[in-house]
Amino acid sequence: MRSIFSIALAAIFAVGAAAAVEAPPAPDAWRPVDPDNLVLIDTKYGETAVELAPAFAPAHVARLRALIRAHFYDGQSFYRVIDGFVAQGGIGEGDDKKLKDWPPLKAEFDRPLGGDTVFTPLGSPDLFAPEAGHVDGFPAGRDAKEGREWIIHCPGTFAFARDDKPDTAATEFYIVIGEAPRRLDRNLTAFGRVIDGLQYLQKLQRGDPDVAAGVIADAARRDAILGIRLASDVPQAERPKYEVMRTESAAFAQFKASKTNPAPGFYVRQPPPILDICLAPVPVRRVAPAP
Amino acid sequence: MRSIFSIALAAIFAVGAAAAVEAPPAPDAWRPVDPDNLVLIDTKYGETAVELAPAFAPAHVARLRALIRAHFYDGQSFYRVIDGFVAQGGIGEGDDKKLKDWPPLKAEFDRPLGGDTVFTPLGSPDLFAPEAGHVDGFPAGRDAKEGREWIIHCPGTFAFARDDKPDTAATEFYIVIGEAPRRLDRNLTAFGRVIDGLQYLQKLQRGDPDVAAGVIADAARRDAILGIRLASDVPQAERPKYEVMRTESAAFAQFKASKTNPAPGFYVRQPPPILDICLAPVPVRRVAPAP
Repeated sequence: MRSIFSIALAAIFAVGAAAAVEAPPAPDAWRPVDPDNLVLIDTKYGETAVELAPAFAPAHVARLRALIRAHFYDGQSFYRVIDGFVAQGGIGEGDDKKLKDWPPLKAEFDRPLGGDTVFTPLGSPDLFAPEAGHVDGFPAGRDAKEGREWIIHCPGTFAFARDDKPDTAATEFYIVIGEAPRRLDRNLTAFGRVIDGLQYLQKLQRGDPDVAAGVIADAARRDAILGIRLASDVPQAERPKYEVMRTESAAFAQFKASKTNPAPGFYVRQPPPILDICLAPVPVRRVAPAP
Repeated sequence: MRSIFSIALAAIFAVGAAAAVEAPPAPDAWRPVDPDNLVLIDTKYGETAVELAPAFAPAHVARLRALIRAHFYDGQSFYRVIDGFVAQGGIGEGDDKKLKDWPPLKAEFDRPLGGDTVFTPLGSPDLFAPEAGHVDGFPAGRDAKEGREWIIHCPGTFAFARDDKPDTAATEFYIVIGEAPRRLDRNLTAFGRVIDGLQYLQKLQRGDPDVAAGVIADAARRDAILGIRLASDVPQAERPKYEVMRTESAAFAQFKASKTNPAPGFYVRQPPPILDICLAPVPVRRVAPAP
């Protein structure tokens, strides 16, 4: 028999887009994810889908596609995983010879305003960026005075790691798996976000953050990257297809409102009308193959 | 051979207390965790340690201790787990007869100021509370005008779930496993935090947030609670012992400063001097048995 808690919880804790938005969004509230921008990372726990943002970091996106197609990550692992922070994958400590074909990239920490994309303000204050909002489905910061915008570090943000000097990222990637580490904004090149399967990365074997910065010394304990593919290289019949809610749509405005206070009847004290940009991941739906 | 990335990463991503604090904290910078306030939750992934805060919610702490000692949670599970949000455990849909001995509790969403404890301001703005800081190792919000303080919902916060009406929590608990859901502050009774092993809860089987509010319908797919014990009921020789950094100490002030900008030499753009209270979990060390 259902306990008293289940009903209330449905009201309190509704977090999915479908559950929270009152009317179904119009069909044009969704855009398809370009298969050239869809990266599928496989581990023994399941497949994680990342959408890339070439508008923010074209050189990094081109590099990642090239690395994937050169099978650079084959046999590599998530060698540095810090609970509440990041899961980092690639060659790690390893075969330096593999790196020589992939020279360091010029950083793309942010980009000038004024491209084709639309910045939709969050409509809520942010402590780290002059303005926070969304650009084409990605959480973005914006500084109108400096004329720059960038992808914000939220749970699920995909970025390249680097050495101490800025222009040193080359092959190693990380994905945020904990509370948004916003101090990294504009200090590393963030150029994608997980749109499905972040939960599988949460299962990765962790390192000890106090030892070797979380690098798992024993390679046998690391979780392997079983494969990284671009969706455009997957045969059509098996290719996962996703749609992302258009962040400039009315449906998304409604979604944000629902996230600020998802269950007004439940709250004894109405929460401040504040939305943490990282608490409102842009809704995604898988359209094929059936999940 | 070590790649160029490891060294830089040690600098960028140092998150542990020991790594970040320059001088070792004075011995009196740590306080022992009272074994009566130390709850050990076992799953097949490992043991998670929670420290309770009786100063904030004495009736909830007393209830939880009684439930544990009555073996209420034996055979129960984490039946509702939403990635990026909460892991909820207890009876779930189930045997209502087991609930009749545990009448609903009066809510303890917040408490009056003026107890024995010390509120140490975070020293950084907060979007949800008039003041954010720490009380005896717990992240706390404070409203001096209303004369109230409360435990903030961060990753690792431990609380009781409830029905729509405020005074309805009885047995079901949840632990935050994702980006801080601050809208829940003062709307549910939060009365503890994970001090070790949050990573094991990250491995729990997830539900679908769009279906039944994340409740996992198939009981066989739920991860079992293998046991919940109070440390004070564990024989001395096997009893885990922890110490928590005193949040009123100089060592903790130094720790917070280090978390705002953990690697100044690495940043191209110095991050704003802002500290998200949930990004700086109070340091904990296990003192026995050896981890």
